[in-house]
Amino acid sequence: MELHQKQQLIAFLSGYVTPRRLERMTKVLEQRTRHLCVVMEDIYQSHNASAVLRSCECFGIQDVHIIENRNTYQVNPDVALGASRWLSLYRYNESDNNTVKCISQLKEKGYRIVATSPHQDDCLLEELPVTEKTALLFGTELKGLSREALDMADGYVKIPMQGFTESFNISVCAAICLYYLSPKVRNTTGNWKLSDEERADIMIEWLQHSVSNPKGLTQHFKQQLGF
Amino acid sequence: MELHQKQQLIAFLSGYVTPRRLERMTKVLEQRTRHLCVVMEDIYQSHNASAVLRSCECFGIQDVHIIENRNTYQVNPDVALGASRWLSLYRYNESDNNTVKCISQLKEKGYRIVATSPHQDDCLLEELPVTEKTALLFGTELKGLSREALDMADGYVKIPMQGFTESFNISVCAAICLYYLSPKVRNTTGNWKLSDEERADIMIEWLQHSVSNPKGLTQHFKQQLGF
Repeated sequence: MELHQKQQLIAFLSGYVTPRRLERMTKVLEQRTRHLCVVMEDIYQSHNASAVLRSCECFGIQDVHIIENRNTYQVNPDVALGASRWLSLYRYNESDNNTVKCISQLKEKGYRIVATSPHQDDCLLEELPVTEKTALLFGTELKGLSREALDMADGYVKIPMQGFTESFNISVCAAICLYYLSPKVRNTTGNWKLSDEERADIMIEWLQHSVSNPKGLTQHFKQQLGF
Repeated sequence: MELHQKQQLIAFLSGYVTPRRLERMTKVLEQRTRHLCVVMEDIYQSHNASAVLRSCECFGIQDVHIIENRNTYQVNPDVALGASRWLSLYRYNESDNNTVKCISQLKEKGYRIVATSPHQDDCLLEELPVTEKTALLFGTELKGLSREALDMADGYVKIPMQGFTESFNISVCAAICLYYLSPKVRNTTGNWKLSDEERADIMIEWLQHSVSNPKGLTQHFKQQLGF
C-alpha cells in the first residue's frame, strides 16, 4: 500500500474506535521513537522480560529485539499488562548465532550498539551520548551479556552505584536507562520521531488491535477502494 | 555500649576481615543515608520485594520498612543477592493496622510521607522536594497503596510516562525513584549522612555478618574490656 492509501485505511478504521481512544493513540504515537531501541539477550525469567516490555511501552520505545539462543521466552501477561501489543517485537531464535545476527542487522540499520554491563566502565549512564541511533543491550540475569555481544558492542554503559551489590536486576537496569535516556533523546536530538510511513504502519496495527473483526474490516475497505 | 566502646569493638572486629573488605565497607557506609527511606505495603510477589531491596542497597538507602497486612513476605535470595543483610529492615505485621502504625512512627521521626501513585498527580518525580526527610511509599502490584496509606501521605509523586500503560512494575517504580532522588539528596541537602552513632551501629552489624563466629568474638572482646 502507498502512504496515502494507508492514511485512508487509518481514517476508515478510526470510525470504529471511540474519539477518546483515537486521541490517546495519536498522542502516544507522537511520542514514539526508534532512535533508541532495546535488545534482550536470553532473559530466562519471563517476569523480567515482561517488565522490560512494560517499561519500553511506558517510555515510548517502539522496538524491542529479543534474542533467544538458549531460552524461549513467553510474555508474562500479569507483568506486561498488555504492553507488548503496542510494541514492535523482533525475535531472533532460528540461526546458530542469533546474537550476531541481531546485532549485525542493527548495525546495518545505523545503530550504535551499547552494552549495559556493571563490569565494563566505559561510561556512566549520564555521560552516554545519544546523538546517534542507539541500541541498548541487556543480558541474562546471572551471567550478563554473552562474549559475542560484548565483543560486538560499540560502547559500554553502567549505572552509578553506591552499595555492595554490583549489579541491578535486569528489568530495573533497563527501566533506569530508559527513564534517563528517553527524555534525553527527545530533548537533544532533532531526528527522534517516527517518519510518516512508520507512524502510518504502527497506527494501522494499533487500530487493528482495537477494533473487533479487524481482518474483515480491512478486507471490506480494500474491496471498496479496489486494491 | 558507649560510642567509644562501639568504636573499640569495630577496631577489634576489623582485624578479622581483609583490609580490602574493610575499605569497601567504610566506603559504602560513607554513602549510606536515612534521609530517604522506603516503605513497601503488602507486596505480594517476593521477586518484586527482593528487587526493591537490591535497588535500595545499590543506591545506599539504609532503611526499608515492610508492612504486611495481608501477606508475609520472604526475601527471594536469587533476586536480592544478599542485599538484605546490608540493610536495616523494619517489619510491621503484628497489629490490626500495620500501615497506620508504620506511617505514624515515621511521621514522629520527622519523615514527610510521599506516596508513589500514577493516579494522583500532585507532582512529577523531578519536582519532588527532598529538603525534608522523605519516606517513599510503594503499594501492591495490582491495587497500589491502600486508602489508609494514601490518606496519611503528605504528598504524591509520579513518574512521567508516554505510553498506554499507566503504571510501572513496582520494583521498576522504586528503582527509578531512587535512581533520581538519591543523588539529589546527596547533592542538595546538607544533612543526609548518618551520625557517628548510626555509622558505628551499622558497621558493627556488617562486621558481625562478615566474620566467622561473630558472637564468640564479640563476647571475647567484651570480657577483655570488662563490660
